[in-house]
Amino acid sequence: MIDKILVEEVVKEALKEDLSTVGDITTEGIISRGIYGRAEIIAGEPMVVCGLPLAQEVFNQLDPQVHAIARVNEGESLDENSLVMEIKGRVASILKGERTALNFLGWLSGIATYTRTIARKAEEKGILILDTRKTTPTLRMLEKYAVRIGGGRNHRFGLYDAVLIKDNHIRAVGSISEAVRRVKKSVPHYLKIEVEVSNFQELREAIDSGVDIVMLDNMSPEEVRRAVSMLKRKGILIEVSGGIRAENIEDYLIEGVNYISIGALTHGSRWVNLSLEVKEVWR
Amino acid sequence: MIDKILVEEVVKEALKEDLSTVGDITTEGIISRGIYGRAEIIAGEPMVVCGLPLAQEVFNQLDPQVHAIARVNEGESLDENSLVMEIKGRVASILKGERTALNFLGWLSGIATYTRTIARKAEEKGILILDTRKTTPTLRMLEKYAVRIGGGRNHRFGLYDAVLIKDNHIRAVGSISEAVRRVKKSVPHYLKIEVEVSNFQELREAIDSGVDIVMLDNMSPEEVRRAVSMLKRKGILIEVSGGIRAENIEDYLIEGVNYISIGALTHGSRWVNLSLEVKEVWR
Amino acid sequence: MIDKILVEEVVKEALKEDLSTVGDITTEGIISRGIYGRAEIIAGEPMVVCGLPLAQEVFNQLDPQVHAIARVNEGESLDENSLVMEIKGRVASILKGERTALNFLGWLSGIATYTRTIARKAEEKGILILDTRKTTPTLRMLEKYAVRIGGGRNHRFGLYDAVLIKDNHIRAVGSISEAVRRVKKSVPHYLKIEVEVSNFQELREAIDSGVDIVMLDNMSPEEVRRAVSMLKRKGILIEVSGGIRAENIEDYLIEGVNYISIGALTHGSRWVNLSLEVKEVWR
Amino acid sequence: MIDKILVEEVVKEALKEDLSTVGDITTEGIISRGIYGRAEIIAGEPMVVCGLPLAQEVFNQLDPQVHAIARVNEGESLDENSLVMEIKGRVASILKGERTALNFLGWLSGIATYTRTIARKAEEKGILILDTRKTTPTLRMLEKYAVRIGGGRNHRFGLYDAVLIKDNHIRAVGSISEAVRRVKKSVPHYLKIEVEVSNFQELREAIDSGVDIVMLDNMSPEEVRRAVSMLKRKGILIEVSGGIRAENIEDYLIEGVNYISIGALTHGSRWVNLSLEVKEVWR
Amino acid sequence: MIDKILVEEVVKEALKEDLSTVGDITTEGIISRGIYGRAEIIAGEPMVVCGLPLAQEVFNQLDPQVHAIARVNEGESLDENSLVMEIKGRVASILKGERTALNFLGWLSGIATYTRTIARKAEEKGILILDTRKTTPTLRMLEKYAVRIGGGRNHRFGLYDAVLIKDNHIRAVGSISEAVRRVKKSVPHYLKIEVEVSNFQELREAIDSGVDIVMLDNMSPEEVRRAVSMLKRKGILIEVSGGIRAENIEDYLIEGVNYISIGALTHGSRWVNLSLEVKEVWR
Amino acid sequence: MIDKILVEEVVKEALKEDLSTVGDITTEGIISRGIYGRAEIIAGEPMVVCGLPLAQEVFNQLDPQVHAIARVNEGESLDENSLVMEIKGRVASILKGERTALNFLGWLSGIATYTRTIARKAEEKGILILDTRKTTPTLRMLEKYAVRIGGGRNHRFGLYDAVLIKDNHIRAVGSISEAVRRVKKSVPHYLKIEVEVSNFQELREAIDSGVDIVMLDNMSPEEVRRAVSMLKRKGILIEVSGGIRAENIEDYLIEGVNYISIGALTHGSRWVNLSLEVKEVWR
Repeated sequence: MIDKILVEEVVKEALKEDLSTVGDITTEGIISRGIYGRAEIIAGEPMVVCGLPLAQEVFNQLDPQVHAIARVNEGESLDENSLVMEIKGRVASILKGERTALNFLGWLSGIATYTRTIARKAEEKGILILDTRKTTPTLRMLEKYAVRIGGGRNHRFGLYDAVLIKDNHIRAVGSISEAVRRVKKSVPHYLKIEVEVSNFQELREAIDSGVDIVMLDNMSPEEVRRAVSMLKRKGILIEVSGGIRAENIEDYLIEGVNYISIGALTHGSRWVNLSLEVKEVWR
Repeated sequence: MIDKILVEEVVKEALKEDLSTVGDITTEGIISRGIYGRAEIIAGEPMVVCGLPLAQEVFNQLDPQVHAIARVNEGESLDENSLVMEIKGRVASILKGERTALNFLGWLSGIATYTRTIARKAEEKGILILDTRKTTPTLRMLEKYAVRIGGGRNHRFGLYDAVLIKDNHIRAVGSISEAVRRVKKSVPHYLKIEVEVSNFQELREAIDSGVDIVMLDNMSPEEVRRAVSMLKRKGILIEVSGGIRAENIEDYLIEGVNYISIGALTHGSRWVNLSLEVKEVWR
Repeated sequence: MIDKILVEEVVKEALKEDLSTVGDITTEGIISRGIYGRAEIIAGEPMVVCGLPLAQEVFNQLDPQVHAIARVNEGESLDENSLVMEIKGRVASILKGERTALNFLGWLSGIATYTRTIARKAEEKGILILDTRKTTPTLRMLEKYAVRIGGGRNHRFGLYDAVLIKDNHIRAVGSISEAVRRVKKSVPHYLKIEVEVSNFQELREAIDSGVDIVMLDNMSPEEVRRAVSMLKRKGILIEVSGGIRAENIEDYLIEGVNYISIGALTHGSRWVNLSLEVKEVWR
Repeated sequence: MIDKILVEEVVKEALKEDLSTVGDITTEGIISRGIYGRAEIIAGEPMVVCGLPLAQEVFNQLDPQVHAIARVNEGESLDENSLVMEIKGRVASILKGERTALNFLGWLSGIATYTRTIARKAEEKGILILDTRKTTPTLRMLEKYAVRIGGGRNHRFGLYDAVLIKDNHIRAVGSISEAVRRVKKSVPHYLKIEVEVSNFQELREAIDSGVDIVMLDNMSPEEVRRAVSMLKRKGILIEVSGGIRAENIEDYLIEGVNYISIGALTHGSRWVNLSLEVKEVWR
Repeated sequence: MIDKILVEEVVKEALKEDLSTVGDITTEGIISRGIYGRAEIIAGEPMVVCGLPLAQEVFNQLDPQVHAIARVNEGESLDENSLVMEIKGRVASILKGERTALNFLGWLSGIATYTRTIARKAEEKGILILDTRKTTPTLRMLEKYAVRIGGGRNHRFGLYDAVLIKDNHIRAVGSISEAVRRVKKSVPHYLKIEVEVSNFQELREAIDSGVDIVMLDNMSPEEVRRAVSMLKRKGILIEVSGGIRAENIEDYLIEGVNYISIGALTHGSRWVNLSLEVKEVWR
Repeated sequence: MIDKILVEEVVKEALKEDLSTVGDITTEGIISRGIYGRAEIIAGEPMVVCGLPLAQEVFNQLDPQVHAIARVNEGESLDENSLVMEIKGRVASILKGERTALNFLGWLSGIATYTRTIARKAEEKGILILDTRKTTPTLRMLEKYAVRIGGGRNHRFGLYDAVLIKDNHIRAVGSISEAVRRVKKSVPHYLKIEVEVSNFQELREAIDSGVDIVMLDNMSPEEVRRAVSMLKRKGILIEVSGGIRAENIEDYLIEGVNYISIGALTHGSRWVNLSLEVKEVWR
C-alpha cells in the first residue's frame, strides 16, 4: 500500500537531515558500540497508528542488525500506553533513530487518527471522505497514504492526473460551458470531468455542460440538499467541499452526496504523542 | 536568512510533485498561453506571513515572465484580508503554481504565527523561545526558518551539531556524571555540554558534572523556580522544556530561565488560510 | 506542451552521455574557440518535424552564446531539403551539439511523422488515435509528446493514472465482473473503468459489469463492427487495439469506434533523416 | 558484459516512470497480495534475445521474492514461441513489471536481432560490423550493449574517447592536413587518428597526413574497391560507412575492408514481439 | 566512526569515475569471468593505515562475491611490507577495483600517518591537535575522518556549526567587541564563541569582549607564552594556529595551550605507498 | 578547457559541504547584508595559478551580484604577492566563499606548479609528461585539468578509455602474448595497445606481440637507454614510468623516450599558499 522505493528514499533523506554525515555526536561519545539493549515505542494517547514501515526502515537503514518489531498493525486503533514497537540491538543505533522514527509516527498517525474519526461517521451514510492537494510540500504521497490508512480515499495526486475546473479557470475563459468544452477536447479519455460550483447559477451551467462530477464548494447544508436533488436525476456524482472539519461533518452527511473532500485531514490534524524508552541494557 | 539553493531545490521538488512531467491538464486544456492577467494572494485571517521567497520561486520556476511581487515583508504581522502578493503574467502559469505557493505560505505562516504569539510574551521577560527536532521529516530547515521568522531561536539542527544528553543516554551508561565525562572527551571544543534532567537528584548530579546548560524537562513551574535558584549561582544556563504551549507559556516565564524549548512550535501549530484570486484577465 | 524541466534534464543527460566531463576531443583539438560560423539543419526527407525545443536546448546548454533559430514550427509538415534550424556562434560549440541535436530530431520526428499519417486518416472519421505504454524505457514522456505533435492523443502515462483491466488480471481473479467489482472499490472517483476483451463472451460480461470503456483487442474488422453495435446503445466508449499499423489502419476506421490505440506509433516508427552542415566560417 | 550499476539505475528509473510513487492502481485494486502464480515470457517471433538481465532486475526490484528465471541465454537465437523466462511469485508483482520487462526485451532484442543478421554475413568475410553514435538519447550504453550481443562491435561511446575528423571539422580549418596536424598535438597518445573522406582528393590528402584509419563515407562499392587498393599498401585501416543496411550489406563486403559502421543497427531496427502470460494462479 | 552512507556514496562515485558505464576494457578483454584468485595489498612503507572500510566497499560494490579481508586494524601503525588486506575472488573484479582501493588507502593513510606523528608529541603535553577547513573540496568528511584515525581532533566541519571570528569579520564591522556583541545575539546557545587574534591589542580586546576561546594566529612561541599567561586566569580556552607543521610543532607545545590547529594535516601531508599484487590464480 | 557543468556541480557540492543549508553563522551574525566592499586574493608564494574558473564560480553561485575578476590568466606563472583576483560586492558573500575558493586555488595551483617545473624540462628534450590514475577519488577530472594547465598531458581518464596491460593481467593469463592476443579481439579499433614491462624478457615478448606502446616500469636510466634502442627501430612508442619526481626527472630525459608518466604530479604535489583579504568596506 506504500511504495517501497518511496519509503527508502524519504527515510534516507530524513536520516541525512538529522545526522548529516557527521553522526550523533552525543550518542557516539557516550555509548560504545558494544552496548546492546531493548527499547519500546509507546503510544502516549489513543490513536490510529500509521507509519510503522517508515519507523522500521529508519532502524534498518541505520543498522541492519537492529530488529524493530511492530507489536500492532498499521492502521490499528490503539489505547493510550499501547506497546507500538519493540526494538532490539545496539543501543547507540536505537538512539540515533529515535527522533526520526517518532517524527514519522507522530505526524502520520495524527493524520490517520483525525481521518478515522471523520471517515467512520461518513461510512455509515455511504459517503466517502476524500483528501485534497492541501498537503505539506514534497510529502504529499505520505500524507495521502496516512489518509488511506485512516479510512479516507485519495482525491487526485496532482494537477496531472485528474480534471477539476475551478473558479479561476472559469474566470479566465468566461463561462463553465466554455471551460468544459475546451477541456473535453484535450484530456485523456479515461478521465471524468469535474467542475467546482459555488452557487446555483453555476450549478445549472455545469449540469448543462455535461460534466461527470460536480463539487459543491462552500455551500450550506441546505444548499447542498437542494443541489443534490437537482443532480441526482442527471446521474452526476456529487462532491461537497469547503471548511468541513470533524466539528461540523455531521451537518454534511446528506443522503445522495457521494464524496466529501476535507483539506483539514492533512493540514488541520495535529501530531499524536509517542515516546521511545530504553527498557533493558546489556553491557 | 534562508538558503537560496534550499529554496530552489524544495520548490523544484514540490512542483514536480504537483505537476509530474505531464503538467496541469485542466489548466492547459482550458487556458491558452496567450491569456495574461493579474492575481492576488490574500490573507484569510490575521497572521505572521512566512514563505514569501518560496512562493515567489514557485512562479519564477514555472515561468520566468511571471512577476510575483510581495506586497508585505517576510515576517510582517498581517490583518485579515491583507494583500500578500500580486502576481502578473500568463494566467495558465499563475494557476499551475497557485496551490504549491499557497501550501508553502499556509504551512510556514502557521508556524511563524504561532511562534510569534509565544515569543512576544517571552521576550518581555528576557527569555528566548527555542524550537526542537520534532519537525516534519525532511523539511526541518524550512520549519526552523519559520520559527526564526516568528521570533523564535533555533535549537540544534540535528544530532550532529550539538550535545544534548537525555534520559536514554543516561540509562545506557548508568549515570549523568559518566555520560558527561565521556562526551567531553570526544565532542568538538567549541560546543557547550547540555544535560536534560527531570528531578532534583539528576539536577544535582548534572551540576556536579560540570555541564554548561541544564534542560529542566517536564517540571512544574514551582520545580523550575527551585531549580533556577540552584543553577544561577553556578553560572549554568537554564532551558525549560516539556508540554509547553501557547496556553500555558505564561506559567513558565520565570525570572532566571534563559530558554524555553517548545516542540509545538513546529508540530502543534496549524496552517493559516490564504487564497489566490485572478482579478483581471487580458485576452 | 512539453515540460521545461524535462527538456532541461534530458538534454543535460544526453550531453553528458556524449561528452562525459572530458569533452569533444576531436573538435577541441582542431577548432579554436575564436572561430565563429553559421550552420544549417536540413531535412533529408519529407517529415513532420518534432524536437525543436530539445535541439535548441542542446546548443543553449553547451554555449549560451550560440543562437539556434528554428526556421519551421514544431509539428510542421516539411518537404525534403527544408531548412529546419539555423545555428550561429562558436563553431566548436555547434559541432559538439550536432549529433545530440540530430538524434533528438530524427527520433522524435520519426514518431510524429508516422503518427500524422495515421491520425489524419482517422480524423476524417472522427476517430482518435492513441498511443500505448510500449515506449522506450525512461523516455516515455518524450515519445508521448511526439505522438501529440503528430496529431495523436495520449493513453495513460503509466500504471498509476488510469484503470485498464487486462487478460492477466481477469485470469488472476476468475472473471471480469469480479475484477470490475473490486477495482471500483479502490480507484479514484474521477477515473473511468476500462476493460480489455478479446471475444464476445468477454464483451458481454464487460457490458454487464458496468464498465465505462471497452478495449476490443485483436479483433477482426467484422468483429469490431459487431461489437460496436452492441456497445453503442449502452453508451460505452469503444477503443480498438492490437496489431494495427499504417498498413491496415483503413480497415479499422469503423463508424462508432471512438479510439484506436497503436503501439507501433512509438515502437514501430523509424527515425527520419536530418543533417547539420556548417555553411559559413568566420575566422 | 553489462554494467551492474547501469542496470540497477535504468530499471529503477523505468519503474518510476511506469508506477510513479502511486503504484499500479488496476492491479492493486484487483489482485490481493496473497495471490501467487507462475507466468511465462514467450517469443512472438524468431529473434536474438537481449535484455534478460534488465527484465530480471525489473522483477527483482519490484519484489525480491519473485523468481524470474531465464530459460534461454542472453544472445541466443530463438524460434517463435520459445519460452524466454519463467516468473514465479506474487501475481500482483509480476503484472506490475510486465510491460517494463517486455519493453526492455522487445527493444534490445530488436537491435540484437537486426545486428546479428548483418554481422554474420560480414564475419564470413572477416569484416567487423560497428555501430555509431546515432542512438536514442541517454540510452546509448544499452543500445551499444545490444549491438555487442548481436555480434557487432562498438565504435566510440562518445565524443570524449576517440578521434574522428569529419567534414564539418575540415571545413572549419580549411584542410584535412591542418586538422590532422592540430589534433595530433592534443589527443591522448593511446588513440589512433581517424578521418572521414567522401572523395578521392580527400582520400589522398588523408593518406598524406599520416592518419591511422580512414572512413570512406557514402562511397559506391566500386569507389570503395578503388580506395581499398590505395590504402592497403599504406597499412591504413579502412572503415566504410553511409546508408548501409541489411538490404545492401552484401555489396559492401569487399576484401580489404576492416570495418563497416551502420547507424541503422540502432536507429533502423524495429522492436521484436514478446508477451507475458500468467499460466498458473495459486490462491 | 565513519558514516556508512557516505562510504557507499563516495565509493560508488569513485568507481563510476574509473569505470564509467563501459567498464575496464583491458581486464574484461583479457581475463575471463571464470578465473579466480587471491591478491594482497601490501604497505610499501611504514604508515598509519586508514581507509580500510572504503577499500573493502570498493570490492564489495564491484562484486559481492569478492572477499576483502583486512589483516590489520584501521588506525594501526604498520611496518613496511605489512600485509594490509587479502582479497579473494574473481580476478577480473579484483583488478577493476585495484587502483580505486589503493587511491583511498594511499591518500587517507597519508593524512593519518602525518597526523599521528604530530598528535603523539602533543598528547604528551596534554594538547589536542585539530584540523582546519583547508581540505580538498567535497571530500572534507573523509579527510577529517583520517585526522581522527591519526589521533587528531576535528575543528568545525563547516561554516554552519561553529563560530570563529576572523580578521576579515573584524575589519568589516570595525572591532572585535562589536563582532562579538553581534554574534552573541544570533548564534545557537550551545556554541562557544571563538575569536582569532594576531597581536596583543586584539588579544586584550577579545578578553574584554567575553569570548570563550581565543585563537592565537601566527604568533611566535614567545608571544604564545605571553598570551597564555594572560588568558589562563580568565578561564579562556587557547588555540594556537598558523604555519605549524611536523617540523616546528615542538616549539609550540607550550604548557597551557589547549589546542593546536594545523592546516597541513590535510593539505600538507603526502600519500603513502601501497600496492596490490595477485598472488594466486585458479583457472 | 574545463567542462562548464563539471565546474558548476563541483562548486555546488563544495559550497554545500561548507555551508550545509544553515549558512555561515559567524558571518551572518556579524555582517549585515547592506555592507559592500572589495577583497583581493594574493599569491603567498611563486606559483602557476590554476582554478580561477572554479573560484569565480564559487562567488557567482553564492551571490550573482558579486564580481570576481581574475587579474591573471589561468596557467600564468606568478611571483609571490601577485594579485590573483579582485572581488567586489556584498562582504558577507565574499567571506562565505573565501575558504572554498582558496581551497580550489591552493590545491589545483599546487598540481599545476609542480607539473610545470617538470614539463618545462622535458619539453626541451621533446618528451611529453603524462599523469596517471593515482588521483584523489572522485576528483580526477579536476586534477587532470590542473596537469594540463601545468603543461602536462593526460594519460587515460579511467579503465574505460584506453588499454594498458599490467603485471597483474599478465600473471592472470600466463604471458604477455596471450594477453595482447585476447585484448586485440575485444577493444575498440581506434585504440592502440600498451603494455607495461619491467625487464628485458618482458620487453622482448611485448615487441614480438605487436603492441603499439611499451611502458618501461621502474627501470634505471641505463635500462631505459637500452630499451629505447630496441624499441625505436620497431616504431613502438615508449613511455617511462615508476618513481619519477621533480628530483630525478633529469636522469630520465633520454633521447628517444616519448612519454614519462608521473603519479606524483597529482599525489605528490603540495598545495600552494594564497590568501584573501578584505581591502575596503563600504557601509
